[in-house]
Order: sequence, then C-alpha cells, then structure tokens
Amino acid sequence: MVGQMKSFLFLFIFLVLSKTVVSGRKPSKSQPKPCKNFVLYYHDIMFGVDDVQNATSAAITSPPGLGNFKFGKLVIFDDPMTIDKNFKSEPVARAQGFYFYDMKNDYNAWFAYTLVFNSTQHKGTLNIMGADLMMVKSRDLSVVGGTGDFFMSRGIVTFETDTFEGAKYFRVKMDIKLYDCY
Amino acid sequence: MVGQMKSFLFLFIFLVLSKTVVSGRKPSKSQPKPCKNFVLYYHDIMFGVDDVQNATSAAITSPPGLGNFKFGKLVIFDDPMTIDKNFKSEPVARAQGFYFYDMKNDYNAWFAYTLVFNSTQHKGTLNIMGADLMMVKSRDLSVVGGTGDFFMSRGIVTFETDTFEGAKYFRVKMDIKLYDCY
Amino acid sequence: MVGQMKSFLFLFIFLVLSKTVVSGRKPSKSQPKPCKNFVLYYHDIMFGVDDVQNATSAAITSPPGLGNFKFGKLVIFDDPMTIDKNFKSEPVARAQGFYFYDMKNDYNAWFAYTLVFNSTQHKGTLNIMGADLMMVKSRDLSVVGGTGDFFMSRGIVTFETDTFEGAKYFRVKMDIKLYDCY
Repeated sequence: MVGQMKSFLFLFIFLVLSKTVVSGRKPSKSQPKPCKNFVLYYHDIMFGVDDVQNATSAAITSPPGLGNFKFGKLVIFDDPMTIDKNFKSEPVARAQGFYFYDMKNDYNAWFAYTLVFNSTQHKGTLNIMGADLMMVKSRDLSVVGGTGDFFMSRGIVTFETDTFEGAKYFRVKMDIKLYDCY
Repeated sequence: MVGQMKSFLFLFIFLVLSKTVVSGRKPSKSQPKPCKNFVLYYHDIMFGVDDVQNATSAAITSPPGLGNFKFGKLVIFDDPMTIDKNFKSEPVARAQGFYFYDMKNDYNAWFAYTLVFNSTQHKGTLNIMGADLMMVKSRDLSVVGGTGDFFMSRGIVTFETDTFEGAKYFRVKMDIKLYDCY
Repeated sequence: MVGQMKSFLFLFIFLVLSKTVVSGRKPSKSQPKPCKNFVLYYHDIMFGVDDVQNATSAAITSPPGLGNFKFGKLVIFDDPMTIDKNFKSEPVARAQGFYFYDMKNDYNAWFAYTLVFNSTQHKGTLNIMGADLMMVKSRDLSVVGGTGDFFMSRGIVTFETDTFEGAKYFRVKMDIKLYDCY
C-alpha cells in the first residue's frame, strides 16, 4: 500500500514538474480558439464627395504625387460600426482613428483606430493597428489593447472589403477575434 | 495514518489539478491590482498661439471643414510630464507623439504617443494609444508596450482634463496603471 | 518510512504552493531570451529628392516652423527590408507606415508601422510603434502585435542608424526580438 502510494506520488511529482517546465516557456500552439469573436461592418463616407450631414470621414492631406494610387492621402474618421450591412442601422460602436494610402503602384492602406462601445451590452474600447493589404481578399490587423469590458484584450481583426462605391463610400467586414480575455 | 494521508493526497491532487485547468484558460477576473501605478500631468502649449520658446506642440494640418470642432486638426507634440500641476516643474518624462480631433458635432480626440523616461529613477519608454473621449470626465487608453525599465509592460492610462486655457494651453492628468510587469 | 514520506509530502506541497503564489503575480525577471530574433535593414528613399521610380517614401506635411529640426514633417513610407545593407538586395519584407519629426532643438522622430512578410520563409505581419530617439545610438521601440506566422507576437525592435545621406536616403539597422511567441 505504502509502496503503491510512493510510486503514485513520484509519478504525480513528475507530472507537476513537467507542467512547470512547459509553462515556463509558452507552448508552441497553432492558432487557439478566440475567447470572444464578433463581426461588425465599418462604413466610411467621405467628406467633399458627400456633405457634412452624411460624411463620417475627411482627408486632411493631398497625395504628393508618388504614383497614381493616392499615396500619402491621410483620412481621419469617426465611422459607424453596425452588425449588418446597412449603414443606416443603429451603430453598436464607433470606429475613431485614421488611415492613409501608402503604395505607389497599387491601392494599399494602413489603419490605426479605436472601436468605442457605449451600449447596454458593451462599454469599453478596443485599440487596433496594422496594414490593410487591399489587394488581398482577407487581411489581418492587430488588436493591441482594450479597456472597460475589453480590459487588456488582445487579438486579431480580419478585414474583408465588402463593397466600394468610388471615392464616396466603402464598407469593410471586420471579424474581431480576441485571444486574451480577462 | 496511511488512510488519512491518502485522502489528504487526493484532496491535494484535486486542488492542484483545479488550478491547472483554471490557468489553462485565463481566469475571468474583474480588474486586478496594477503592478505599477503612478500619476503624471501632461502639459500642451500650442505653437502659433504661443511662441517657439514656450511652445511644445504644433498643428500640421488645417481642419477641412467637417463640422465646427476642429475635425482633422492633427497636432505633433513633445510635451513635458510632471508630477505636479505646474508646467514649469522639472519634467520626469517627455510625451512624444500626436493627437487629432475626430468628431464633427463635439470635441473629441485620438492619441498615440510614447512616454520617454530618462532620469535616475526610470529609464525606458511606455507606448500608448487610444481614443480621448473628451466629453467624458474620465477615459481609458491602452498602454500597448514598454521598453527599458518598462520592458514589455501593458496597462491602462486614465485621462482626466485638468484645465483648458482656450487654444493655448491644456493639462491632462494621466493615471498610468501597469498590469503586466516583468 | 511513512514519517519520511510525510515530511517529503509537506516539503513538496510547500514548493508547489510557493510556485502558485509566484505565478499569481508575474515573476520579476531581467530581460529573458527572445523566442525569435532577427536583424533587418530598413531603407528610406525620399520622394522629391529622388524620383518616383526610386522613391519609397514621401513627406505629406511641411514643418510649421517650430524650431529648425523638421518638427512636424510627416512621412509615409513603403520601404524595403533586407538582410544585408544593400538597398537593391531582394527585400524579405516591406515596412509600411509613417514617421514624423517631433523635437524643436534636435532631430528626433516617432514611428508606427507594419512589417509585411510574404515569402516562402515567413508570411504574416509585425506591428510596431515607439519613439526613435535619434540622438541615442541604440533605441528601443515596441512590437505590439503580430499576425500569421507572428500570431499575437510581442517584443522589442532596437534601432541603430546605419547611414544617413542628407535628405535623400537613410538606413536603419532593426534588431527584432520577440518574447511572446505562439
């Protein structure tokens, strides 16, 4: 009996110590399941093409002429985020931040912005930045921080361009996946 | 005696395994205590309103006319951070970065900047970004990274506008709370 | 025998509980070894000084006059990253983002950008931001997130200016150290 318990105890010690060693360096894992996941649509209506009443964004610089793809055009936005594709739906969040075009031989952009939630369901923010590789169907940006209900969150936002109406309006499907939740 | 030990051992195994399971997915916890916490005051003195000698920031774009609340005004700053409200106190850090206004029907801003510490007490940087919802008394931005003494830090900075003297000067109380410390 | 086992068990419990307490708050450790580490060279060729064919970046604002060190000059870039110092070498990544000058009495800058990898070796992005304290030989910025092969990565990028040819070209050695790998 005591012998059995002894070997059981040593096996157990071995298992716990193995765990300790493994947790010392984070295990190499292929992408885990998100702890939170939701899809929102981003609607951008450009001032100058549309009027003050409707516009949700405005360019603040003119492209300096490096190629023909708006390189250097910087846009500030306060855009509605909705759960369906209709930009007139009640927004569940605002996207506040900026993007600019940054390639001389194709359309390509870079974003940094905050999703501001202020509803009965969610209060708080998510902070996001990354390259928007527009020629790729689906591209990933980083969620680098969060506040309120999203305290200290991190994760990935996957962009897919949903529609594009010339210079006036575009819509991006944003699939938000959080992997660090508190 | 052996029986007692056996049940004690099993209870102990149960407790350790419970811990293992819980630490596998991060425990859902309401905001923990920060591992570092300090309050600094941010002083912004605008060039053009004040002169080169005194100014610590400058607008680099003009609002394009989307509303009457400076939408699209982008400001670069190298601002002193002090431990009291006097902007002439010896700075304990510099705040280097930018903000812009981004709302058409009220004052609202967005910040990204680095706190640069270079004193006997602290050497290193903290990198911060997020929405500055100016109509809210107290608002949270994300500390997304750190270097030097703040190696790999993450956390929250809580902004409160402390004073506002027209377009010339404003002061923000920044309560810096780090939750990941190394 | 049972006595020995008992004391051994209590020692063991003590050790495990110690570990539990320590892992509750992250251990204070001096900088650990990176889980990934590589050096790349960043090449910036300014439009206006060089032509559309060669240029990889362009200024989109003019300095407003706060000092004589380009305060407020904002540059958008899509720069090649190479493993050696030759800017004509095959790039292993693109650096897409922006920097601006932000000091009135010396050269100093601030960067936010994405390293975009799209080779057989690496696919994915690293998102980086921080102060570029140009008067310091070696300065650290934060890797605040990653995607693809760099899923959820965090770390440090150490900048060293490698060469500077007037307003036309400069090269920065970027030592990329990741401490969170998945």
